[in-house]
Amino acid sequence: VKKSGTIAEALVRFILDEGLAEGDKLPSETELAARLGVGRNTVREALKELAGRNIVRIRQGSGTYVAYNAGLGADPLGLTFIPDKLKLMEDLLTVRILIEPPIAGMAARTATDEDIREILRLRDAVNSRIRAGDEYEEQDAAFHTAIAMSSKNTVVPRLIPIIHSTVTMLVDVTRKALAREAAAVHDDIALAIAERDAMAAQDAMHVHLLLNRQLVHKIVRQQSRDSSLSA
Amino acid sequence: VKKSGTIAEALVRFILDEGLAEGDKLPSETELAARLGVGRNTVREALKELAGRNIVRIRQGSGTYVAYNAGLGADPLGLTFIPDKLKLMEDLLTVRILIEPPIAGMAARTATDEDIREILRLRDAVNSRIRAGDEYEEQDAAFHTAIAMSSKNTVVPRLIPIIHSTVTMLVDVTRKALAREAAAVHDDIALAIAERDAMAAQDAMHVHLLLNRQLVHKIVRQQSRDSSLSA
Repeated sequence: VKKSGTIAEALVRFILDEGLAEGDKLPSETELAARLGVGRNTVREALKELAGRNIVRIRQGSGTYVAYNAGLGADPLGLTFIPDKLKLMEDLLTVRILIEPPIAGMAARTATDEDIREILRLRDAVNSRIRAGDEYEEQDAAFHTAIAMSSKNTVVPRLIPIIHSTVTMLVDVTRKALAREAAAVHDDIALAIAERDAMAAQDAMHVHLLLNRQLVHKIVRQQSRDSSLSA
Repeated sequence: VKKSGTIAEALVRFILDEGLAEGDKLPSETELAARLGVGRNTVREALKELAGRNIVRIRQGSGTYVAYNAGLGADPLGLTFIPDKLKLMEDLLTVRILIEPPIAGMAARTATDEDIREILRLRDAVNSRIRAGDEYEEQDAAFHTAIAMSSKNTVVPRLIPIIHSTVTMLVDVTRKALAREAAAVHDDIALAIAERDAMAAQDAMHVHLLLNRQLVHKIVRQQSRDSSLSA
């Protein structure tokens, strides 16, 4: 374990030194082993460790590639360990309300034509799942991430998947009520960006997230009333 | 490795099910082994894995405790893999400018007397290092984290150490210029919170971060001018 750990760090340095970016292919295990002066098995173990940390992606029969959002783990902030999940959901929405409306405004200014096609495509993907009554959290996170990427800020697209994570956990409580408004607001946001109307994009995103927090806050209030009545 | 991985997840579930929080002590390895029906060595390996993921902290001769900011890794967003570090620094400051001023305003309303004592103590710690010409990034991050914790938002204190990380990387470029204004602004922020003046706290934090971004942006502009002249 110790040895593969050291080799894993050497591979991270190799990726950085070579300037390999998301989606770029790494040399073969044989070549990496020769470069680092270790055995192929050691390289393979180290690559598995890096795959576990989402730094590389191993595609069977194809090769090893730098992962999308390299180094971003499944629960990077350790939100699993915040015990009060409703409070957590409210706090995540507060962070989203601070970040996402101005980012949507920036996106309306900086999005390329290709970005806009992708945002509209994801809007359709989310909304068709909402109308069918299916789970839509994954597509929703992708829609918000695409907007963040269009802003050309490099940090926010890495934050979005995290600050969406807990919404998925609690979605049973809120999905129906949220879905009612979500489809219409997704249209507002996507079209404002497509029309490069920064203020409209910012306001639509702001309204969307405020409606979300209002709903969660009502549930929090109701729960604390219920528990004080039963106490 | 596979087996200790499964046991590691069982230990995570144990921590969550028992409601253990930051700083709480876990049962002994012997007791955990008995509860999970595995050997002590397997438990020890799994605890080491959790320590590597900052979920527990093993103190020799004392025992195993739930870690501070459990589950929050060293570089949880994988910012190491964003190649353009100056652009990254600007983008991190943009995120901080969106989040930290309103959070400082909230802190002025919600901070306890104990929170305020801690903020003032950390302000003194940062400023005495600045005046001595020493590195102050660690104390600066602690100062900003203490303000975020005083806001009682559970997510922002976990974001602050991350969005401070790259500032440390680039500090050689900017430390001298930033230090000049930092000490005075830290006073403004800390005293506004101590006086429970939300608008003053929000504005002081806003000014502080805008001055930071202005400086970084000037460096970015200068570099792009230099590279276009040499092209």
